[in-house]
Amino acid sequence: MPGSSFGTHLHLTTFGESHGPGVGVVIDGVPPLIALTESDIQVELDRRRPGQSSVTTPRREDDRVEILSGVFEGQTTGAPIALLIRNANQRSTDYSNIKDVFRPGHADYTFHHKYGIRDYRGGGRSSGRETAARVAAGAIAKKFLKSIGVTITSYTLSVGPIKADVVDLNEIERNIVRCPDPNKAVEMIQLIESARDEGDSVGGVIETVVTGTPIGLGDPVFDKLDARLAHAMLSIGTTKGIEFGDGFAATLNRGSQNNDAFIINGDSVTTATNHSGGILGGISNGEPILFRVAIKPASSISKAQSTVTVDNETEVIEVHGRHDPCICPRVVPVIEAMTALTVMDSWLIQQAAVAGRLGRP
Amino acid sequence: MPGSSFGTHLHLTTFGESHGPGVGVVIDGVPPLIALTESDIQVELDRRRPGQSSVTTPRREDDRVEILSGVFEGQTTGAPIALLIRNANQRSTDYSNIKDVFRPGHADYTFHHKYGIRDYRGGGRSSGRETAARVAAGAIAKKFLKSIGVTITSYTLSVGPIKADVVDLNEIERNIVRCPDPNKAVEMIQLIESARDEGDSVGGVIETVVTGTPIGLGDPVFDKLDARLAHAMLSIGTTKGIEFGDGFAATLNRGSQNNDAFIINGDSVTTATNHSGGILGGISNGEPILFRVAIKPASSISKAQSTVTVDNETEVIEVHGRHDPCICPRVVPVIEAMTALTVMDSWLIQQAAVAGRLGRP
Amino acid sequence: MPGSSFGTHLHLTTFGESHGPGVGVVIDGVPPLIALTESDIQVELDRRRPGQSSVTTPRREDDRVEILSGVFEGQTTGAPIALLIRNANQRSTDYSNIKDVFRPGHADYTFHHKYGIRDYRGGGRSSGRETAARVAAGAIAKKFLKSIGVTITSYTLSVGPIKADVVDLNEIERNIVRCPDPNKAVEMIQLIESARDEGDSVGGVIETVVTGTPIGLGDPVFDKLDARLAHAMLSIGTTKGIEFGDGFAATLNRGSQNNDAFIINGDSVTTATNHSGGILGGISNGEPILFRVAIKPASSISKAQSTVTVDNETEVIEVHGRHDPCICPRVVPVIEAMTALTVMDSWLIQQAAVAGRLGRP
Amino acid sequence: MPGSSFGTHLHLTTFGESHGPGVGVVIDGVPPLIALTESDIQVELDRRRPGQSSVTTPRREDDRVEILSGVFEGQTTGAPIALLIRNANQRSTDYSNIKDVFRPGHADYTFHHKYGIRDYRGGGRSSGRETAARVAAGAIAKKFLKSIGVTITSYTLSVGPIKADVVDLNEIERNIVRCPDPNKAVEMIQLIESARDEGDSVGGVIETVVTGTPIGLGDPVFDKLDARLAHAMLSIGTTKGIEFGDGFAATLNRGSQNNDAFIINGDSVTTATNHSGGILGGISNGEPILFRVAIKPASSISKAQSTVTVDNETEVIEVHGRHDPCICPRVVPVIEAMTALTVMDSWLIQQAAVAGRLGRP
Repeated sequence: MPGSSFGTHLHLTTFGESHGPGVGVVIDGVPPLIALTESDIQVELDRRRPGQSSVTTPRREDDRVEILSGVFEGQTTGAPIALLIRNANQRSTDYSNIKDVFRPGHADYTFHHKYGIRDYRGGGRSSGRETAARVAAGAIAKKFLKSIGVTITSYTLSVGPIKADVVDLNEIERNIVRCPDPNKAVEMIQLIESARDEGDSVGGVIETVVTGTPIGLGDPVFDKLDARLAHAMLSIGTTKGIEFGDGFAATLNRGSQNNDAFIINGDSVTTATNHSGGILGGISNGEPILFRVAIKPASSISKAQSTVTVDNETEVIEVHGRHDPCICPRVVPVIEAMTALTVMDSWLIQQAAVAGRLGRP
Repeated sequence: MPGSSFGTHLHLTTFGESHGPGVGVVIDGVPPLIALTESDIQVELDRRRPGQSSVTTPRREDDRVEILSGVFEGQTTGAPIALLIRNANQRSTDYSNIKDVFRPGHADYTFHHKYGIRDYRGGGRSSGRETAARVAAGAIAKKFLKSIGVTITSYTLSVGPIKADVVDLNEIERNIVRCPDPNKAVEMIQLIESARDEGDSVGGVIETVVTGTPIGLGDPVFDKLDARLAHAMLSIGTTKGIEFGDGFAATLNRGSQNNDAFIINGDSVTTATNHSGGILGGISNGEPILFRVAIKPASSISKAQSTVTVDNETEVIEVHGRHDPCICPRVVPVIEAMTALTVMDSWLIQQAAVAGRLGRP
Repeated sequence: MPGSSFGTHLHLTTFGESHGPGVGVVIDGVPPLIALTESDIQVELDRRRPGQSSVTTPRREDDRVEILSGVFEGQTTGAPIALLIRNANQRSTDYSNIKDVFRPGHADYTFHHKYGIRDYRGGGRSSGRETAARVAAGAIAKKFLKSIGVTITSYTLSVGPIKADVVDLNEIERNIVRCPDPNKAVEMIQLIESARDEGDSVGGVIETVVTGTPIGLGDPVFDKLDARLAHAMLSIGTTKGIEFGDGFAATLNRGSQNNDAFIINGDSVTTATNHSGGILGGISNGEPILFRVAIKPASSISKAQSTVTVDNETEVIEVHGRHDPCICPRVVPVIEAMTALTVMDSWLIQQAAVAGRLGRP
Repeated sequence: MPGSSFGTHLHLTTFGESHGPGVGVVIDGVPPLIALTESDIQVELDRRRPGQSSVTTPRREDDRVEILSGVFEGQTTGAPIALLIRNANQRSTDYSNIKDVFRPGHADYTFHHKYGIRDYRGGGRSSGRETAARVAAGAIAKKFLKSIGVTITSYTLSVGPIKADVVDLNEIERNIVRCPDPNKAVEMIQLIESARDEGDSVGGVIETVVTGTPIGLGDPVFDKLDARLAHAMLSIGTTKGIEFGDGFAATLNRGSQNNDAFIINGDSVTTATNHSGGILGGISNGEPILFRVAIKPASSISKAQSTVTVDNETEVIEVHGRHDPCICPRVVPVIEAMTALTVMDSWLIQQAAVAGRLGRP
């Protein structure tokens, strides 16, 4: 598979480059009869768009979405939904200096060798701009999941060495780093601004919590829910790792500490702890699903860097431009979108199993 | 997809339960004309099998593989290769005490709710025994990759808090924890034996290095090489996280530190550092691919644990048996196998792109 | 995809060659809690096996199936079901004369050039023996479909120019050509025996009717139910065409004749005619699904034929052996099996849409 | 899979309805470095567009294609190519009379029951308009295949009972029915015009010949080249059957007649006849690939027809409009497109096998 598609029953295909006519997505498998307008999607795009605050790139892009298909009289029809976001600014003039030079940390070098050609304007297909299409598609998945009681919340847990001490979900959208700890948010913003002023960037960790998931999502062996989520998260260009529940810290514990004891809670079964992050044997157990994703410091920086040209000559490159000094706040909606798309696909797949188990149409 | 298949051009399907007739795998897409015998596969199975040392389960299973198809006169034919490993010991008597009880940390609870039935004998389909099939398939992928210059090496980097200080690949198979640091290996063994004597278990981290990978493996957007590897690794039951290159530690650095500068090295281009772990924009850049996987402390322990029954009653369970006090040494070949299968699939997919680029058959 | 797998939610992978250790199949996605024993499968294998009558090959093969996984205490568990049929007779001595010669009408030539190697014993992977695995898997699908009211019946509609005048489904298993017209069956048998005595073969047409299908199976555009069935049928080696409803004859009619008028029948809607064969726009409309498959005269004949060798030399070949003079009677259960697997997969896929439409788990 | 995607390495996803904003397609897996402009695509769209002659619908639609992605400086980049064709005329006023009535022969009834909602304007997603997207994508595949020596030609072999006696490929585009026999073309046109004047429609048979195909395309068992082509052809809404080589007529012959003898022709091997249609065991044998597709008389007619409403009431419907009295001339480029997409995908898949066989990158 050439790579621009994701999912089985909910099947997603994105297209577009940062400086071509636009980016977009086709989502096939969305159930019919869901009320859907462009504003349902726009609200999520606005959370991702550039220029939203002092800690993101000052580039202004409106990112208006157009629904091209799949919606009739305000409702989904079951047909594929195509969404198009035109690129407002396609000028290539800014990119002449990187035409023949590989930016460190970027995909320029690997795309050049893989394809023998690359759209050097702003990363082309490898640009983070592609994630606008994912966010647009994810908005639909989030809306569907909400209707069945599933909520997905991502937030900036840490920026560089600064880590949230408290997680208050109500605080997330109240600060520009999308941190659930308002005090730490202030420190994070200071760190990001300091990096920005140096022409540098910082990374961070984004945590995601999914609540309301029924027991049974995910399939044994190769399509475990955590495997699917890991695939989804590492498909975001800026990520370097993922961990579920206690993750790497679990390797320091004993089995007797790490196993989550089952307990009776009123009429239902729950676990006394949630070290597993809500997934057992690759299948959701009804507890909140919890995972963290490592976000590298953004590769786009203004500082001088050593590199080589397409003709194998050494060069020093300085890429001045309107970079994101910390991509975390804008990755938060991307991670929510990919989580929603993955969970919704798993939910749809599960319906075949559930119905098959009942054996009756 | 119901979950027992993996890969696109190299398409893998495993089957079998821990206490059924056997486990096995069908691998489709293996190129023809590769010399292959059962002993090529057996050598890898022997690295995974139980009973190989004092830090693994004392259960003895021979795990003899039979090639059922796809090999003719000692060579692969391009037809699917089916491999069968009969279970030597199918007695279910040991499992009567867990028939109606959910073991904490295991998939008993989620399988029971997902399917309404479970083969309670030793975990059934969710048993680690399934990974024998992956190791068998992976042996073929490793042999193929070796023929094109790609080598895959995994090792135990840490057990609990004890971490290798040096990485000497020659040491790995010289100690029973498969640690590349012989001194730390001694400490690791002591820690594992201590946990074992308490009826408990410990976790660890396994690191993998892939060398000789050509530039260009992996596909943009959703099928990035790291996304595929993350999917593969998280599909192994005992894993809780993965990180590539500097991984989570990269979130503490600046972009100017984390970007790997390109340099000229003789006739070719290389990078001064390898913080990225050999993958840029989801595509291999020719540097060694490096990642680490978190292995939780094994869920199977003898200590008493609180749990519930299938009838929602509280119970204390003690599962006496021949458990692995640390699964790391036996997971090492499983991770190598899944890495090999993923890299080989990516290599085959890439051939379509390369040939298509040349445009000539 | 390398070709040995079929289906999405019901995912099938076959393996094995005619003269290797055996043939088999892994079926993933079968719902749990279906009662299943080897005899459920054996009954269908017996309909396909060689040596069952004077118009099939006199080769005797018992074709005993073994369930290797996925069944526990007599019920399916939701885990993949692996089925193995050992080849009773693996002697290769009969095949030395065709080792270096390409049999006309067979896949010898194309396999040789595609793979650079072929298992020349009896066709290897391209042998009709592979269909035993499909029949075994299909037996499970047929059992499932029966439980939801769907029945699948195939029969020999014509052999050479002799065509059934009446279709009495009760007659099918009462004669050795599986023809629904007992009088024509006699003529068909005479024609087959005459061809056999000349060392030649004859073809025919097999018709299939599926009843009890709910409205809504099949997906728009590329995965129309007829497209899936056509894929399934043409994947059987001996087929040369398929037509649905009136098929090619519909091209002779006017639209006003060919359109099936909707009528009220009691409480429900039906169609006055069924020219469409039960599928409208690729989706089942609740009427019987009807299609016909062209079966070529078997390629394996004893008569002398002109051909070439692997060294590009002209040669005359006579392949004496125990051939099927007409493969139709033995293809009937293969077509039923592939139909059942396709319809069941479509049914499972549809459950995701239905549940998604309801929007409630 | 929800059905709007096709192909493995060349992965196609279409979207759009007849009366929404537009129709389009994303093609992923096109090799880089192919020169491509909108006019390469437009030329094929013009062959399919309405209003091109007196035997097609008089509706005028310009069908201008816009390339949204995947092309940079006039060349493909390896990134997905998105193509958009805006619908010129989205007025729904003409369709009020069919809003609550199921047109016989159309997908109205099945879509309504499958999804609980349908875009009733002109068939919505089930409209033949969707095939414009396929033709656009196919134009790229045809261009690629041409560069490696593969040509695809489809033509109207028969209309109703009138069948071409001679096949002169140069004549096809010289008459408005795209018939390779100029004399029969005149008769066909008369028949179509007569049906049109009665408010009725006629069907026909379209034949396709593919030349220049290398040996080895197609994969054994489930992904035979003929199975893939059959899937592709039956996914076109108006088709009712397909046959390869001699097809259904082969069932009337003996094996000794039907088997194609291999012969030496200069330095190479060829077959004395081509009854098989260029495919042996599901794999191309280097001879021309030949198949015929049955096209039903178009369902859209003006004549009065009996039907039912969404409220299960009997009704007589007359759909006046600008219908195609015979869809064959406009289906010819659709069949060419689907053939090209299928053959190109098979060619790309084969490169993985070929390279894997050589075992060297």
